Amino acid sequence: MFHTRLDKYNNSWYHPGRNKLVIALWYIVNAVFFCSFITLPYSIKNAILRLFGAKVGKGVCIKPRVNIKYPWRLSIGDYTWVGENAWIDNLDQVNLGKNVCISQGALLLCGNHNYKKETFDLMIAPINIEDGAWIGAKAVVCPGVHVASHAVLTVGSIATKNLEPYSIHSGNPAVKIKNRI
Amino acid sequence: MFHTRLDKYNNSWYHPGRNKLVIALWYIVNAVFFCSFITLPYSIKNAILRLFGAKVGKGVCIKPRVNIKYPWRLSIGDYTWVGENAWIDNLDQVNLGKNVCISQGALLLCGNHNYKKETFDLMIAPINIEDGAWIGAKAVVCPGVHVASHAVLTVGSIATKNLEPYSIHSGNPAVKIKNRI
Amino acid sequence: MFHTRLDKYNNSWYHPGRNKLVIALWYIVNAVFFCSFITLPYSIKNAILRLFGAKVGKGVCIKPRVNIKYPWRLSIGDYTWVGENAWIDNLDQVNLGKNVCISQGALLLCGNHNYKKETFDLMIAPINIEDGAWIGAKAVVCPGVHVASHAVLTVGSIATKNLEPYSIHSGNPAVKIKNRI
Repeated sequence: MFHTRLDKYNNSWYHPGRNKLVIALWYIVNAVFFCSFITLPYSIKNAILRLFGAKVGKGVCIKPRVNIKYPWRLSIGDYTWVGENAWIDNLDQVNLGKNVCISQGALLLCGNHNYKKETFDLMIAPINIEDGAWIGAKAVVCPGVHVASHAVLTVGSIATKNLEPYSIHSGNPAVKIKNRI
Repeated sequence: MFHTRLDKYNNSWYHPGRNKLVIALWYIVNAVFFCSFITLPYSIKNAILRLFGAKVGKGVCIKPRVNIKYPWRLSIGDYTWVGENAWIDNLDQVNLGKNVCISQGALLLCGNHNYKKETFDLMIAPINIEDGAWIGAKAVVCPGVHVASHAVLTVGSIATKNLEPYSIHSGNPAVKIKNRI
Repeated sequence: MFHTRLDKYNNSWYHPGRNKLVIALWYIVNAVFFCSFITLPYSIKNAILRLFGAKVGKGVCIKPRVNIKYPWRLSIGDYTWVGENAWIDNLDQVNLGKNVCISQGALLLCGNHNYKKETFDLMIAPINIEDGAWIGAKAVVCPGVHVASHAVLTVGSIATKNLEPYSIHSGNPAVKIKNRI
């Protein structure tokens, strides 16, 4: 019988993309200025994100209490919003298009584990969210999911598969329930 | 084809109900004394909420780490509980009746967007939760939902429509699964 | 007609397992060193948990921002992980086996209320999670649920009943969808 052996877990192949000093520095900046009630002007937050390697378009709004794992694996298009208490857990690349809305409490999840292996190997996959899409409050986008242009994921829904363009998706797992227009 | 244009978003019609100074002051009070591990006596918290315009009955219990957007849009009846890490995102009026239980991690959500308009217009709607109702842990009540007397929303469920009196509702979206008694 | 009367709520029978001084001390330690961005070495965290009465095996990894109610009601087996922002709300005993993974944002919930009684009596029940099980990100395990060996609860799913061994469970409420291997 198969037995998970986390003592044999080995993610040494994974490279977080920056050295330990930069990672530690971002960890502190994230804790103090992003994932807190401190409200720096959006322009300052966007400048800090760019300093740490993020691509950030114009007019981007990052609300308070947003948790971002690695800004150097984050690209945000013009006029996109990231709501209060959202969590961008981007072990892999997260690309947000233009005019995207990530609502409050949403989670973008790039990490998974191979539950068929005793070593529970880390598996990562990027998330791409195209222009005009809307991820509802407390919704979750799972690793590797492609959210097509102007797709909507309703409040508290869990996207485990790609979302279709100009369509509303709901449930756990989320399925298409209707067209956007 | 329709394209969301968040650069054209305009919520200037929306009035938060207080001037910027009061809003900033509440923001700090909320961050320090409500949405934190600090444990003021319930009576002090209730007095602070009343000072900011909330209607708060007797015997109300607000646990730690509760996030309240605008206390002047909040009414809480006698002996009602608000659990740890609950989030009252009351852009519009939230009325909690008497003997209501909002469990830990629940979200009361008053804001929505018109996803059929390029300008993604803000839409707000009040939430009314009647006497004796129970919103389970990590459940979400969506904008405009009326939770009738003694209705129950189970753990992690999403109420997108009105909940019936003396009935248990479950799922995403929540549907009635049985009577309360 | 039945009316909830939270003014008559009485949980004086419930004993949290330690005196008020120890509970207050743990409350502060939890707030400062566990449920925060502070990153003590795992070995130090495990030692602190043991000091407060937890049974903690070797190689246990507790990530930042983890909220633990009562460590003296917690047992964690060797090489088990508790992910960022997980919440162990253990009013009753929580036993995590060996090589268990509790992913980020998950909630282990031991408290419930009897909604058929006007006094809304507190009901508690232990949670047992056996070796090799995996509780996905933002998933919830409800009071009294037994998670059998190597069971998996998918992202955002709600376990209201026991989970079968070596099986994947999904949804709200979670149902078995396939075998693990």
